[in-house]
Amino acid sequence: MSRVKVGLVRVLTLHDEEALNVHGRLIEEKFPSLYVISRCIEGFPKGLYNFEIEKKAIPHIVKLVGEFEKEGVKAVIISCADDPGVEEARKRVKIPVIGAGTAVASVALIYGDRIGVLGITDEVPRPIKRILGDRIIGYEKPHNIESTVDIAKNRDEIIRSAKKLIDLNIDALVLACTGYSTARVSDLLKGIIDIPVVDPVVASGLLTYYLVAVT
Amino acid sequence: MSRVKVGLVRVLTLHDEEALNVHGRLIEEKFPSLYVISRCIEGFPKGLYNFEIEKKAIPHIVKLVGEFEKEGVKAVIISCADDPGVEEARKRVKIPVIGAGTAVASVALIYGDRIGVLGITDEVPRPIKRILGDRIIGYEKPHNIESTVDIAKNRDEIIRSAKKLIDLNIDALVLACTGYSTARVSDLLKGIIDIPVVDPVVASGLLTYYLVAVT
Repeated sequence: MSRVKVGLVRVLTLHDEEALNVHGRLIEEKFPSLYVISRCIEGFPKGLYNFEIEKKAIPHIVKLVGEFEKEGVKAVIISCADDPGVEEARKRVKIPVIGAGTAVASVALIYGDRIGVLGITDEVPRPIKRILGDRIIGYEKPHNIESTVDIAKNRDEIIRSAKKLIDLNIDALVLACTGYSTARVSDLLKGIIDIPVVDPVVASGLLTYYLVAVT
Repeated sequence: MSRVKVGLVRVLTLHDEEALNVHGRLIEEKFPSLYVISRCIEGFPKGLYNFEIEKKAIPHIVKLVGEFEKEGVKAVIISCADDPGVEEARKRVKIPVIGAGTAVASVALIYGDRIGVLGITDEVPRPIKRILGDRIIGYEKPHNIESTVDIAKNRDEIIRSAKKLIDLNIDALVLACTGYSTARVSDLLKGIIDIPVVDPVVASGLLTYYLVAVT
């Protein structure tokens, strides 16, 4: 079986090859027909933790998407729950551009009308807010987490926040930061709560798989 | 490879086995790891073409979903763009219940903000309207089509309506009736227009695949 090449943009500067490839490997694990090439933007060591930083990152993201297209990948995933640069990149390339925020919210819709959202920012990421609207029953940002790099060392706070959302009688829990995918928070929570957890990187993989391998 | 059994409810009474299985075969073709068992509700020879008829059908749909669960299927698809009985069935069973309307709208979100919808009713089906909201740039119901059974014999009218939507500069075209899936309208349009067409049965298959084989 020949795998389909897709690009993935990490919005966090990473110099370690293994760390860079964590999202890509997760997608390949779930969708073995995809081959994911990951690249990151330079100069963003804490990721995109506020709108100002995010705005500065967009031209870098769009540039990477353009390079991916030239190299012949069939689609590009922007691996961030706020979909930075997705709209801008679509104007520049002809291949599909998948935002992890739109992807995770889209997949969550299949579970029902009561969705809990776990993020790292003060507000629900915009694409998720726009799609889920009044289906969002609760939003939590765990204590001590100010950027994606704080996730791995605050597992207890993440579990605490997830349990608060579960108490709202939700149909599914959306992870609204791809840093949660890096830390495999979905697996962590599966052992603790019995509500479906929607991972933004896996959801991006699903829709990419659909776009390049199904239609 | 052992395939995962899922149920599919046709909301149109069909006595011919091959016709009954058309949606299931389409899903199996796109997602070979699924094995789809199709059943239909009795007494609805023209499908659910208005709200009154739809309301009458809901107890029949819920009953079929309950039977499917007892037989051990891993999920059930309600193959109708208005998601009749989805909410009601979820209250009665523990397995996932997938509505084709929610599924097709969810998948369409990945293409962008300008979506055209092709239906068979006077209004956009409610789950699609609710999810896509102001992303719906245009809605068309082809001439001469009053119920799902009119679709196959009005291909020219379908093409005419699709072209009207394309002229609105849309990012994707949503087929808002699973009767369009039966008639393979997605394949018909692919040869004529160069905008992605989202098929409700295929979209249901994608989300079912996610629910039973990926997570």
